[in-house]
Amino acid sequence: MDAGALVFDVFGTVVDWRAGVAREAARLLGPDVDAAAFADAWRARYQPSMEEVRSGRRPFVPLDALHRESLPAALAEVGGGPVADDVAGELVLAWHRLDPWPDSVPGLARLRRRHLLAPLSNGGVRLQVDLARHGGLPWDTVLGAEVVGRYKPDPEVYDSAPRFLALPPSRVCLVAAHVDDLAAARERGLRTAYVHRPAEFGGDPVPPVTDPAADLSVGSLEELADALGC
Amino acid sequence: MDAGALVFDVFGTVVDWRAGVAREAARLLGPDVDAAAFADAWRARYQPSMEEVRSGRRPFVPLDALHRESLPAALAEVGGGPVADDVAGELVLAWHRLDPWPDSVPGLARLRRRHLLAPLSNGGVRLQVDLARHGGLPWDTVLGAEVVGRYKPDPEVYDSAPRFLALPPSRVCLVAAHVDDLAAARERGLRTAYVHRPAEFGGDPVPPVTDPAADLSVGSLEELADALGC
Repeated sequence: MDAGALVFDVFGTVVDWRAGVAREAARLLGPDVDAAAFADAWRARYQPSMEEVRSGRRPFVPLDALHRESLPAALAEVGGGPVADDVAGELVLAWHRLDPWPDSVPGLARLRRRHLLAPLSNGGVRLQVDLARHGGLPWDTVLGAEVVGRYKPDPEVYDSAPRFLALPPSRVCLVAAHVDDLAAARERGLRTAYVHRPAEFGGDPVPPVTDPAADLSVGSLEELADALGC
Repeated sequence: MDAGALVFDVFGTVVDWRAGVAREAARLLGPDVDAAAFADAWRARYQPSMEEVRSGRRPFVPLDALHRESLPAALAEVGGGPVADDVAGELVLAWHRLDPWPDSVPGLARLRRRHLLAPLSNGGVRLQVDLARHGGLPWDTVLGAEVVGRYKPDPEVYDSAPRFLALPPSRVCLVAAHVDDLAAARERGLRTAYVHRPAEFGGDPVPPVTDPAADLSVGSLEELADALGC
């Protein structure tokens, strides 16, 4: 695979959203809320909240705004009460402070030697900048949903990566832990690499070990660097 | 000045376009062309070429395309003949390989400790990524013309910086060596810092030493770091 650029799904693929959100929830909400269950409940509202934008029922708003809107219902689902605005704001920023998986930074450092690297996430630009500073992610620039005003799997998000990076789609590879994201990228002519992240959902469910439709399936970003000879 | 983010004009402010273009022209065109005069002639077509897009007479195209289109006339002006497509392509890429001014990288490294940093240039995303890799510019992300499909001084370019960085305009400062760029940024509520770059045009003309309308006027990015306590 002759990829000039690697673009990455981020939540689940590069960073551990579940542990990070749970850590901040435990800090901000105390022991009365099951922090991991809260993280799952909040994440469960992720796709439905974006669907309002994808369908055209509302104009694009960045993911922070969707997280803020879905917070009360997620809290209520796990028995949490309403929280003050400043606490809500801090909880939304939990998504800006997620830790990378242990292999992410060493893997990206190696991959960067021979490839352009950028997130292609539904998270916003500032969110990705904050994650990069928090975790030391060596992106060349931030691409993704907010830059084009659409959420994946809208084709425009995938199309924007080769356009901004001035490469043919066949020289851009999406790296993701989610087979539906990869399938949508292939529809637009991108290469695809699947990363198995067994702990993304806390071990239940465990995602498939490989994606037979992808160009590559690996168990970590260091394995991806091995596979690409970096 | 409480700037959370510093966004930068790049050509002339962070990198020396004239010496860089002249160096590549000398390499690619040989001694029969006055390389510095060619750089000046090409740059002179920069504003008029963007004006076609700004006026709405043509849809947005990235700066590389405008450089490619204005190349034959710039060459002819200095007595150069037509060049093969591969040479023309290499000349366009000269704008991706410009060296930073000597103070740029040490200044940015210090500024980055306390500010988000991004280019806000009329150069495209890939061009900025290439300049950053070539010169070691520590951007957090690339912003600017191509991301919004407009050329400075279109207000949308300036407005996009606080929007993508999730900051009020008053906490974003444009750093530029050109008073007109800074004036347009102030119109949109951004802070401004003027950098005096006496050699940008080869010493003739010499730009003003300060911009009295800017929040700050400095002689280098290291002086800017001093002024901001970084």
